[in-house]
Amino acid sequence: MVYKIVLIRHGESEWNKENRFTGWYDCGLSETGLKEAVEAGQILSKEGYQFDVCYTSLLKRAIKTLWIVLETMDMMYLPVSKSWRLNERHYGALQGLNKAQTAEKHGEEQVKVWRRSYDIPPPALEVSDERYPGHERKYSSLTEEELPKTESLALTVDRVIPYWNDVIAPSVKEGKKVLVAAHGNSLRALVKYLDNIPNEEIVELNIPTGVPLVYELDENLKPIKHYYLGDQEAIQQKINSVASQAKKKE
Amino acid sequence: MVYKIVLIRHGESEWNKENRFTGWYDCGLSETGLKEAVEAGQILSKEGYQFDVCYTSLLKRAIKTLWIVLETMDMMYLPVSKSWRLNERHYGALQGLNKAQTAEKHGEEQVKVWRRSYDIPPPALEVSDERYPGHERKYSSLTEEELPKTESLALTVDRVIPYWNDVIAPSVKEGKKVLVAAHGNSLRALVKYLDNIPNEEIVELNIPTGVPLVYELDENLKPIKHYYLGDQEAIQQKINSVASQAKKKE
Repeated sequence: MVYKIVLIRHGESEWNKENRFTGWYDCGLSETGLKEAVEAGQILSKEGYQFDVCYTSLLKRAIKTLWIVLETMDMMYLPVSKSWRLNERHYGALQGLNKAQTAEKHGEEQVKVWRRSYDIPPPALEVSDERYPGHERKYSSLTEEELPKTESLALTVDRVIPYWNDVIAPSVKEGKKVLVAAHGNSLRALVKYLDNIPNEEIVELNIPTGVPLVYELDENLKPIKHYYLGDQEAIQQKINSVASQAKKKE
Repeated sequence: MVYKIVLIRHGESEWNKENRFTGWYDCGLSETGLKEAVEAGQILSKEGYQFDVCYTSLLKRAIKTLWIVLETMDMMYLPVSKSWRLNERHYGALQGLNKAQTAEKHGEEQVKVWRRSYDIPPPALEVSDERYPGHERKYSSLTEEELPKTESLALTVDRVIPYWNDVIAPSVKEGKKVLVAAHGNSLRALVKYLDNIPNEEIVELNIPTGVPLVYELDENLKPIKHYYLGDQEAIQQKINSVASQAKKKE
């Protein structure tokens, strides 16, 4: 092992419970999510982890998770870079809808395709739609080409990996200890790339919320191994519950 | 008015009550301090302020104040740069002592000189002293020349102003809306420079905790005017209370 990075998916959000497609909708953490973040900070402290630089998205559920981890570890002084490239997958016109509404509108089979396929995106937002991210001040520096109207996991990979290659990987190679706080699908994108996971397998990979995921990398940043920090049995239960949730609603 | 920047001194810290010289000691906010930060965010929101970039120190009482302001304003996504150059004045060998201890050790008159003079620093820390910042991971990128063993306000000015000139001022001139969350003396340093306040006057200037201080600047970044946001009577009381506290203990 030459390098070690830590990935963390944000804790449970306020919309997780409401059975809605969240995507770029900027909801906060639930009480459970806040607690998960504290626990993540505690296990990282207990295991003696140190960091030099942190990366997160522009969505508050990931930023807040990171802030709580840093506060718990007494490392609030660390530099934090935030980028839209680490945002959750954009759910297009499905954003804000719940599964029942979505199935009503488009049919069960079609919804399954959008949820399970690697490269078929949900219907795109119109630019006039108030949910289009081009209307938000926080995305005002993005070009029209960069601003998503919808995304498949494949499209998410396309915008996450340049950030890995251009920003995160160089700082890892400089010897900096890196912490990434992001989302289910932006982390799937990263893990797919690092571990070279086939398209049909990555859609089935479930990263549990609020659990530090350690990747040990060789000098070419190829993974040697990865593991979750904490009570392994509890983590496995969490992964199974994410998987069955995804089956029920996503 | 061409540009507008907002400065904010962190809310009350846990050591403010204990009558101690804090300096670079990294204490958190008190309950009152947390509340002050929320109120600062509320008044900034109410007055319709927007920001593009934020600057703060490496000390958690300033960082936490900023985080609370950003969370209250729903602007957690903003980029934040942290620098030791915005840290509080380093109090040298007085750090951690309270006024009674300090007066006992060095005499009342001497303590008055360290507190009131512009350019006489308190006794320096030895490098072997555990309080020397060179022992802390967060200052590991600083050179020995940069690492303070003690500071007068004059020395604080010397390290704050390069950060203004090299980092903050250029981003103001780019048209970015800037928020600076820092400390009593690093903000005194900045205000002295902007308003060209004489040495003997700046030591008497009291910036209240947790109150947004707006500077309107011309195209050369010379101040046109400045003012505090919020209930002006309450702010004046706060300024007077800081002043009388400083007389009693500092």
